[in-house]
Amino acid sequence: MEATNRYIAIKHLVDEAAQESDFELKTETFTLSIEPRKKEVIVKNLYLSVDPYQINRMKIKSSSQKASDFAGAIIPGEPIEAFGVGRVVDSGNPEFEKGDLVAGLLNWGEYSRIKEGGLLNKVDSTLGLPLSYHVGVLAFSGLTAYAGFFEVCKPKAGEKVFVSAASGSVGHLVGQYAKLFGCYVVGCAGTQQKVDLLKGKLGFDDAFNYKEEIDLKAALKRCFPDGIDIYFDNVGGDMLEAAVENMNSFGRVAVCGVISEYTDKGKRAAPNMIDVVYKRITIRGFLAADYMNVYGDYLAATLEHLRNGKMHALDDISRGVESIPSAFLGLFRGDNIGKKIVQVADE
Amino acid sequence: MEATNRYIAIKHLVDEAAQESDFELKTETFTLSIEPRKKEVIVKNLYLSVDPYQINRMKIKSSSQKASDFAGAIIPGEPIEAFGVGRVVDSGNPEFEKGDLVAGLLNWGEYSRIKEGGLLNKVDSTLGLPLSYHVGVLAFSGLTAYAGFFEVCKPKAGEKVFVSAASGSVGHLVGQYAKLFGCYVVGCAGTQQKVDLLKGKLGFDDAFNYKEEIDLKAALKRCFPDGIDIYFDNVGGDMLEAAVENMNSFGRVAVCGVISEYTDKGKRAAPNMIDVVYKRITIRGFLAADYMNVYGDYLAATLEHLRNGKMHALDDISRGVESIPSAFLGLFRGDNIGKKIVQVADE
Repeated sequence: MEATNRYIAIKHLVDEAAQESDFELKTETFTLSIEPRKKEVIVKNLYLSVDPYQINRMKIKSSSQKASDFAGAIIPGEPIEAFGVGRVVDSGNPEFEKGDLVAGLLNWGEYSRIKEGGLLNKVDSTLGLPLSYHVGVLAFSGLTAYAGFFEVCKPKAGEKVFVSAASGSVGHLVGQYAKLFGCYVVGCAGTQQKVDLLKGKLGFDDAFNYKEEIDLKAALKRCFPDGIDIYFDNVGGDMLEAAVENMNSFGRVAVCGVISEYTDKGKRAAPNMIDVVYKRITIRGFLAADYMNVYGDYLAATLEHLRNGKMHALDDISRGVESIPSAFLGLFRGDNIGKKIVQVADE
Repeated sequence: MEATNRYIAIKHLVDEAAQESDFELKTETFTLSIEPRKKEVIVKNLYLSVDPYQINRMKIKSSSQKASDFAGAIIPGEPIEAFGVGRVVDSGNPEFEKGDLVAGLLNWGEYSRIKEGGLLNKVDSTLGLPLSYHVGVLAFSGLTAYAGFFEVCKPKAGEKVFVSAASGSVGHLVGQYAKLFGCYVVGCAGTQQKVDLLKGKLGFDDAFNYKEEIDLKAALKRCFPDGIDIYFDNVGGDMLEAAVENMNSFGRVAVCGVISEYTDKGKRAAPNMIDVVYKRITIRGFLAADYMNVYGDYLAATLEHLRNGKMHALDDISRGVESIPSAFLGLFRGDNIGKKIVQVADE
């Protein structure tokens, strides 16, 4: 049996200034059945994740960096791997059968073929939570926030926590974990609507719109008169410099991502290393995949918080495979509120 | 009883471009006896430490930094605290008596008065080691090297270690600790003489003259074809950027000092934070004073290495209190080989 599969590809490797014209919507004939003895799984995609880091896999090789440094380069014309949720259409793998809801490494298209050994897990549909949660708060965004905060930042109750891109897919969860843990939490975001959301629904102690601040160092000084103990960095650039300047002794910076530097290589952070020495600051990059040892704890805690209403997962959902490029590029403009997801088919 | 005490002071707070004319040699009448009931100790200074970090305590307050951030500002006209070794002239403290050799926080002059509670310890003169060692390898330079390498970098045998300012007071010890521990060690320095010393007497696996390299990234790539696991950073700036680019996954940077940035604030390091994230690099500033818990281990190991000739402590000794400003400013020109010490009186 065959279907028409529409998927998104890059036309060529991109540079810092990626735009929609760098992407194309391709159409292919897609076989919906598995060849005998192949342990593949065919999935009809439902919800797909778009994540800022993917741009690093699309970039033109430069002297200092090559796309293939980042968990495999994305190849022009080929389907683009992305986490997502879908429904099994056919399976040669005894662990899955037709009709199963699954979450794993799919691609930016309407159908995915998951080879043997590919990342794929059944979704527990008895949880009574929206299916899109399995793309964000119950997937890498959630684990990144949880592991980054608890394992990298090693917080103590009462500590002062700053989160940048605080209404983003990871940031809005970090702030809530930190509040539930007993920290004082301030976030920054790029619109008044986001700031209101942080201070209102999400329960941050304070928040500010960084686009309306002339001096980021002064803004942080105002929000943290006693200094910052933990900075959960999603943006890099100027904000990292300002945070380091406002950090307390033995402060910790967890560098989750540096979105401001992904699309503007001129914007590199130059934190004051004299501060780093004298204040004994630790700046540590991390990837959630290194923390699978806390997956059980993370999932149990997060499900409990979601069920008792103490944590809110924000999903920002666009519709249609053709909307993926603009949804993706919108991440760098700050268009999204919470986890950006594209729904490519009805449940 | 009174003596004439000559001491060095700054005339005024300095800026990035400190020079000898910013310093003055002052003369005062100095009382050599202790007033009744005062638990002070009067010390005739013998060997005094000059350290790059002291410049940060002399600097003019800027918007981003004030001298007082750094363990107390140095006040123009007043004696300047510095670690050193001397001989007790008079003591109101029952722990010390006239004639004792002591090491502690003295000042850049011929005599010091150490108040009750001041840092002062008797020197064990039965060790049979040069007295100047108690200013460097057996004092903060040694502890900084030991704690920074073992406690901050957490090395594993066989790991690849890069040390900058490798012939400096701390660097030359770090490299030797790392070699004795079983690491592959490469150092950089600023003259061919220093490079020869590193590769010869000090046993580094390799070394290079950074002033003769057009491209520091390429130099490190050449010395570390399989990447750097640990970077012991004494300089900051471009070298930190180049090291981060050449680091392996889970690499660690111990930031001990950033001497290239102390006298040139335009030279700030802007390490590629995308590398920091994807390679899960940790950049950590530290101060030796936080590691007094390993003091016993450090001292035992270091004494053993020195006695059996497996470790060489380099002391670079100038003579006379009046030579302190040039000895100090020479640190920023790379004049010193090993620990810079000024001998202000004969033993």
